[in-house]
Amino acid sequence: MRKAGSLPSEYSTIGDDVAVLPAKGRKLVVKVDMLVESTDVPRGMSYRQAAKKAVAACVSDFASKGVRPDSFLVSLGVRRGTTRSQVNQLAEGLRDAAKEWGLNLVGGDTNEAKELVIDCTMFGFARRIVERGGARPGDLLVVTGRFGLQPAGLAIMMRKAKADASFRTRATNSVVNPKPKLEVGIALANYLTSAMDSSDGLARSLHSLARASGVGFELITLPLASGIKRFAGANGLSAEALGLAGGEEYVIVGTIGKRNLSAASRAARKAKGELLVIGRATKQAGRVVLKSKDATVPIADEGWTHLG
Amino acid sequence: MRKAGSLPSEYSTIGDDVAVLPAKGRKLVVKVDMLVESTDVPRGMSYRQAAKKAVAACVSDFASKGVRPDSFLVSLGVRRGTTRSQVNQLAEGLRDAAKEWGLNLVGGDTNEAKELVIDCTMFGFARRIVERGGARPGDLLVVTGRFGLQPAGLAIMMRKAKADASFRTRATNSVVNPKPKLEVGIALANYLTSAMDSSDGLARSLHSLARASGVGFELITLPLASGIKRFAGANGLSAEALGLAGGEEYVIVGTIGKRNLSAASRAARKAKGELLVIGRATKQAGRVVLKSKDATVPIADEGWTHLG
Repeated sequence: MRKAGSLPSEYSTIGDDVAVLPAKGRKLVVKVDMLVESTDVPRGMSYRQAAKKAVAACVSDFASKGVRPDSFLVSLGVRRGTTRSQVNQLAEGLRDAAKEWGLNLVGGDTNEAKELVIDCTMFGFARRIVERGGARPGDLLVVTGRFGLQPAGLAIMMRKAKADASFRTRATNSVVNPKPKLEVGIALANYLTSAMDSSDGLARSLHSLARASGVGFELITLPLASGIKRFAGANGLSAEALGLAGGEEYVIVGTIGKRNLSAASRAARKAKGELLVIGRATKQAGRVVLKSKDATVPIADEGWTHLG
Repeated sequence: MRKAGSLPSEYSTIGDDVAVLPAKGRKLVVKVDMLVESTDVPRGMSYRQAAKKAVAACVSDFASKGVRPDSFLVSLGVRRGTTRSQVNQLAEGLRDAAKEWGLNLVGGDTNEAKELVIDCTMFGFARRIVERGGARPGDLLVVTGRFGLQPAGLAIMMRKAKADASFRTRATNSVVNPKPKLEVGIALANYLTSAMDSSDGLARSLHSLARASGVGFELITLPLASGIKRFAGANGLSAEALGLAGGEEYVIVGTIGKRNLSAASRAARKAKGELLVIGRATKQAGRVVLKSKDATVPIADEGWTHLG
């Protein structure tokens, strides 16, 4: 409310007290996501990266719902004493995001706060969305990427784990510059029977989809990013925990009818993505398990791993 | 991003990862306003009042643009250790607001932060809005309320001023339970040539309208709330400063063609409001003055008074 006076006016709602956009469809799709410095910005992440990541979190939700976002608003809370250079970094990050995902920044609000807060509200228009509740027993369980890299990167940035330079770069990049695959999500919209993103971790996504759809899931594989097993072994961590209870991988977790698999896979490849089948939906509502040759292990509904 | 785990799920985007609303018009109107505890919540304002006020700030902007808001999202940052009772207070305040202004709360996001942050994003649909830039020389300058009570209340709450019980109650109520006049704004939409709300103070509103419209303003009166002169005198404050450089009165400041005055006044009364003529727009771009029998005094472009 009370404006941080020294900030550039481009952060006020542009041109007037409200923003006005053409309504390009019959349904308005909206999402808000707040990034808070003390919990979401690890040491080593710049203001520019933080601003872009706040937008990426919303883009990821739109991707998983198969909806192309149109524009966004950003509310900023900035500390007293924030420098012009830091403010410019935030602006750069928002421009990076607008450019990468083809969005319009239509307004915002800037305030003084005790820590950096970046709240992004995103808008799009659509006829329908891919909901959480559409999975049916027999559907294939699919994901658009591999898991574990983001929690590994966070552990490295928090100095709770070590890795060689190459893995460190890949892992920390996944934290500071996440790349939700918007085009893949939009390409899959007509095929997915249910979906959400993995922002709170694969295990939690599976349980949320299972609850909303009234099904269970049997995983036949846990798709870990390359190098995760070695990283986990070297640091006394569980590779399975990194893959299941990480978060913010911005991967789409969803279900698809068997007969649509080849068409959906082609669509994902055309959008420069991949579609991995990792299991199937079952009739046993709420039962989420990992099945191997030797055993069937229940997967707990866990969110973020607080590593260490 | 990282969820505050102990909070009720009604604060997550309701039902799915995004909210979906019917687009009820050709243009989407959006506004975001962030309330931050350390700068916007004086001692004596409850969490319930703070939550409602965050919504009121957006309602006020919609009122001044003549647009009926449809729904809102709320992003919350809450301190670690926030009690269940405080969370319930926030929920009550949001429900109070939804009820008072006929809005739907369609979603949100809850996070851990170092202080309470309430970021409200509001949506509506309209064919047009009342813009800042439409004032023409000769238009009458109008307001929908009187000034000074809110900064007086803030000074009392911050223990920087004293007042008798009756004035204290009126003044502090104007701070903790602001009442933007949504129906008055909507009733005036067809008559106002320009408008904005007074959230950053009357002086700043006048300069903003003058700049956007390329006009000047001559005030012939400064409409102070009753009791302000006595309060100012008793506390060694300037009544004019309270009236001009206060803020958050949530009054509409605008312009209107002379021939529409009687129709607009009737419309405002029908909506249980009032329309006060306080001056006129002139050709002298950017010149904002208060004219009395004796003198013409320039009004500076000042925002919030940091009292004391």
